[in-house]
Amino acid sequence: MSDKFKKVVVALGGNALQEVGAPPTAEAQLKTVNKTCGYLADISCGGYEMAIVHGNGPQVGRIILSQEVAQRIDPDLPAMPFDVCGAMSQGYIGYQIQQSMRDALRNRNRNIPVVTILTQVVVDENDPAFKDPTKPIGPFYSEEEAMKLMAEKGYTMKEDAGRGWRRLVPSPSPKRITEIDSVKRLWNTTIVITAGGGGVPVVENMDGSLRGVAAVIDKDLAAEKLAEDMATDFLLILTEVDKVAINFNKPNQRELSHITVAEAIRHMNEGHFAPGSMLPKILAAIKFARRFPGKKAIITSLYKAVEALEGQAGTMITMA
Amino acid sequence: MSDKFKKVVVALGGNALQEVGAPPTAEAQLKTVNKTCGYLADISCGGYEMAIVHGNGPQVGRIILSQEVAQRIDPDLPAMPFDVCGAMSQGYIGYQIQQSMRDALRNRNRNIPVVTILTQVVVDENDPAFKDPTKPIGPFYSEEEAMKLMAEKGYTMKEDAGRGWRRLVPSPSPKRITEIDSVKRLWNTTIVITAGGGGVPVVENMDGSLRGVAAVIDKDLAAEKLAEDMATDFLLILTEVDKVAINFNKPNQRELSHITVAEAIRHMNEGHFAPGSMLPKILAAIKFARRFPGKKAIITSLYKAVEALEGQAGTMITMA
Repeated sequence: MSDKFKKVVVALGGNALQEVGAPPTAEAQLKTVNKTCGYLADISCGGYEMAIVHGNGPQVGRIILSQEVAQRIDPDLPAMPFDVCGAMSQGYIGYQIQQSMRDALRNRNRNIPVVTILTQVVVDENDPAFKDPTKPIGPFYSEEEAMKLMAEKGYTMKEDAGRGWRRLVPSPSPKRITEIDSVKRLWNTTIVITAGGGGVPVVENMDGSLRGVAAVIDKDLAAEKLAEDMATDFLLILTEVDKVAINFNKPNQRELSHITVAEAIRHMNEGHFAPGSMLPKILAAIKFARRFPGKKAIITSLYKAVEALEGQAGTMITMA
Repeated sequence: MSDKFKKVVVALGGNALQEVGAPPTAEAQLKTVNKTCGYLADISCGGYEMAIVHGNGPQVGRIILSQEVAQRIDPDLPAMPFDVCGAMSQGYIGYQIQQSMRDALRNRNRNIPVVTILTQVVVDENDPAFKDPTKPIGPFYSEEEAMKLMAEKGYTMKEDAGRGWRRLVPSPSPKRITEIDSVKRLWNTTIVITAGGGGVPVVENMDGSLRGVAAVIDKDLAAEKLAEDMATDFLLILTEVDKVAINFNKPNQRELSHITVAEAIRHMNEGHFAPGSMLPKILAAIKFARRFPGKKAIITSLYKAVEALEGQAGTMITMA
């Protein structure tokens, strides 16, 4: 790999794919992806080698939901298992980003190949998350349907604030990116889209073979794992806000420009970061900054990404 | 690339993914894929560097159909456009092959990375196929629905033998594999699954940007294009029969072990090869043999593949 360029793993938030209020169509998503890729191409033009990790929550939710609906109407259209739905969402989103990113780069006279690597991520079958599923996915069911699914398929299901019952899946930690070798080989010439949706979660059987499981790997933690494996200079986590804040949405809200791991942990323990929102981003940032003292985790918005990499915007998390 | 190994592009027929009579579930497909990958791993162990191109007809058909059904029930589940459905099918099938192939290789003490590259294939907007759509896809519609779709969406639709109306899409020729650069970089270390379903068909806009289109690229022709780009030693097209035959299924059926391009063309002109079945395979084989006099196109079954590469089985098509 060349030393000329700084290396960065970019984790894209949900708003980079679907704007609030936009219809949930692939056509509307492509328009948002086109805008997003303009900003990502600017990062590339800033002299950074990058890989892209995207989320897939709403997309895989809709894939699952439409299959469940279709299966009820026509038994010849069986719903796919969770891992396959994740792989399909990597195909859907990866295709749009790779097409759009290529064009955004060409518009900037930068002809770098962009490619999606379908990615499996190994998780530990003994990860405590498997004992405590927390991620709601797919459609809402009636109590009767839920009881049937729990009995027949062994699903964990939970009543969700009066809206019906929903399946919960575990969110285990990423242990190993199965296709990391290919990402490494392509890295210094190619922008790789990988570990989409956190990767398709797989466990290792006793004989070492892999088996897809119903789980969701946090995409920020998967991006962090990738940044560790590639020893990148930056882990760049993009979200809706320009900076991380404490006392968020309160009169005494304070935006943070640079915090140490120790400060981040203190804020975290004080409950400043919402689970399922800022908390996993902070956790990923802490993990990266700890692993590589001297390197930088950054949390910021798409629009401030280039400035943030130059230290002019966003929230930087470092060891010291 | 090393010279130690012979290079081969393998095009997988539909029966390599779904057995006749098996339920159309992802679980049943994975079992078939596991068997298939055993044979493919044997090819690799025979000392061949390979890339894998798979079909996606039944799979993408079912993805489209389930989305159309879901959309009718719930307008918040809009059906995806054709190109996105193709990308999703690459995710689905590529995931299963890449997982299964890795395990089949490990069982043979051969730890070669296997990876799916999401692939777009450029077609010419002026390809005559766009004026004459021939590939039926997706669900059957009533005459009334069909008229509405033709008027509203500009679909080409055709009454299909009393079973209802179906959409027809064009089948243009593959011009360029957009991600060929990444395939080349990975080739000599990695088994790449690419151009799945013939690739997601895209056209070039006036400004050089890419746009997905509703079309189906024949997977054998896409495999041939890949074999040309990689200048492989073999194009290996796998199908249900061990050898190509003339007078197929007639009392005077005769199996062919080795034919020249001239002989293949003569048989073709005499109508021996069924359109949509053996004909596209013969066309792809002729194209490859013509492009590389001295190299070999082979049509055979999965089970005879290793023998056929050694010249001991299958039908070989060469220039002279």
